[in-house]
Amino acid sequence: MKQTGETSTFSSRVVAAVARTGPLCAGIDPSGSLLAEWGLADSASGVQTFGLRCVEAFCDTVAVVKPQVAFFERFGSAGMAALEQVLSAARSAGLLVIADAKRADIGNTMEAYASAWLDPASPLAADAMTAVPYLGLGSLQPAIDLAAREGKGVVVVVRSSNPEGRTLQEARTGDGAGPGVEDLLLSEMAALNAQTETSGVLGAVIGATLEPSGFPLPTLGGIILSPGIGAQGGTAEGVRRLFAGCPKGTVLANVSRSVLGAGGDVASLREAARVAQEEMTGALASD
Amino acid sequence: MKQTGETSTFSSRVVAAVARTGPLCAGIDPSGSLLAEWGLADSASGVQTFGLRCVEAFCDTVAVVKPQVAFFERFGSAGMAALEQVLSAARSAGLLVIADAKRADIGNTMEAYASAWLDPASPLAADAMTAVPYLGLGSLQPAIDLAAREGKGVVVVVRSSNPEGRTLQEARTGDGAGPGVEDLLLSEMAALNAQTETSGVLGAVIGATLEPSGFPLPTLGGIILSPGIGAQGGTAEGVRRLFAGCPKGTVLANVSRSVLGAGGDVASLREAARVAQEEMTGALASD
Repeated sequence: MKQTGETSTFSSRVVAAVARTGPLCAGIDPSGSLLAEWGLADSASGVQTFGLRCVEAFCDTVAVVKPQVAFFERFGSAGMAALEQVLSAARSAGLLVIADAKRADIGNTMEAYASAWLDPASPLAADAMTAVPYLGLGSLQPAIDLAAREGKGVVVVVRSSNPEGRTLQEARTGDGAGPGVEDLLLSEMAALNAQTETSGVLGAVIGATLEPSGFPLPTLGGIILSPGIGAQGGTAEGVRRLFAGCPKGTVLANVSRSVLGAGGDVASLREAARVAQEEMTGALASD
Repeated sequence: MKQTGETSTFSSRVVAAVARTGPLCAGIDPSGSLLAEWGLADSASGVQTFGLRCVEAFCDTVAVVKPQVAFFERFGSAGMAALEQVLSAARSAGLLVIADAKRADIGNTMEAYASAWLDPASPLAADAMTAVPYLGLGSLQPAIDLAAREGKGVVVVVRSSNPEGRTLQEARTGDGAGPGVEDLLLSEMAALNAQTETSGVLGAVIGATLEPSGFPLPTLGGIILSPGIGAQGGTAEGVRRLFAGCPKGTVLANVSRSVLGAGGDVASLREAARVAQEEMTGALASD
């Protein structure tokens, strides 16, 4: 929920939330296989029940949740109506919400996506949205501007851990002589985070199983959302090396499957989230 | 509409449609400013009326339409319900529909996006969806597979004409010594289009104002969707040079603003589409 009083940036809100509860960002991913495991219908009603149970289970032990939009969109407008209910419940529960929408476009089209996910008046309003920079970081400016005005965030997929992403994200700019795509993006994002108007708006998705790249992450000036810590393969040593020196509370550990696989009753989910929160707190402890 | 009898690929369906009507792909972009120009409410009901009028106006003179998803998503589930109505009307009118969703993700999440836009049972079903390859072309495989099974297409944003996209899309793979990102993607797409199972599935978005890159476009084996021809800046000479040798009917000229700006009555829209169709036919004539 937006804080009153002095303006707080998205980044500072995440840091405060992590200080309160820990670095876990719990995914809300009602995939077909998880719906089946939970005994829920493969329908808009099923994903709504799934999402609402997640909110109920997570609100005590988790500060940040990340609904995966695709699993709601799969059911068209009915699925999006379900997501609206889940987002509304998450807001009421005081959870910080990152809508994992991975949107990308330019100009007034990007502005429309930003409006959908970041405008407080939108039924889909979240605290931050994920975005994809294939059209250049500059193409995301309408989202960055809206986020800045509303104290919200744009979390850019920069270094994904899937092997198919490496070739493109490591490609060298400047006719082959400049920095890699991912490092150039991180520099541009750091420059925006360093400006007063867009301070703390830009976050980065960085897979936990990657080796450090050339860019010094502690200078990003925004949050990092990292999938793949723990069960998914990122060892504690690797994670500490990758995020060494990052300011306290700026690295969020995204966990989905290993919590959601605990099954569909709220008590089991809550316990799985508690265990994951403890594990991630340990993995990201700076000493 | 899907053809009966022998299997037809997405690419062959586009070629047949262009032969019938011409290369115009008419955008359905109910932006806030166009809604105001048309005297429609800035609401889900407004975008639905806008979209239905487009379908009514275009179905005589245009073979392919491209609704811009963001402008519907801006109104949440109600906006998506409006889009469902527009898609349904377009299907009934026999229009080929490219859903301009620019989705990107990996694994079962990408599979969920593909299901939303390409599964014939989905309320949002289109003939093709646009997708963004920042996570690697391989990340789009679930969409490519579903499209292949259903005779549909995945139109990948490869070379966007916005200036902010150039640095990333021209970055050199292979530690700076390999082909540019955009050319590598086009080669990978051509390889897929050359396989029997995925023949003609992969299309490419290529801005009309760009210079030719190293990749020989006539070997793509799929369609090209090109924004920016005509009023938006791509001269006839430039366009002919860029698409020289591409098989007849494989280049779609996307036009949105210059048609939609004709205003909100069906007769004016129809006339603007007819003029644009003629202009694009001229611009893409091979001799």
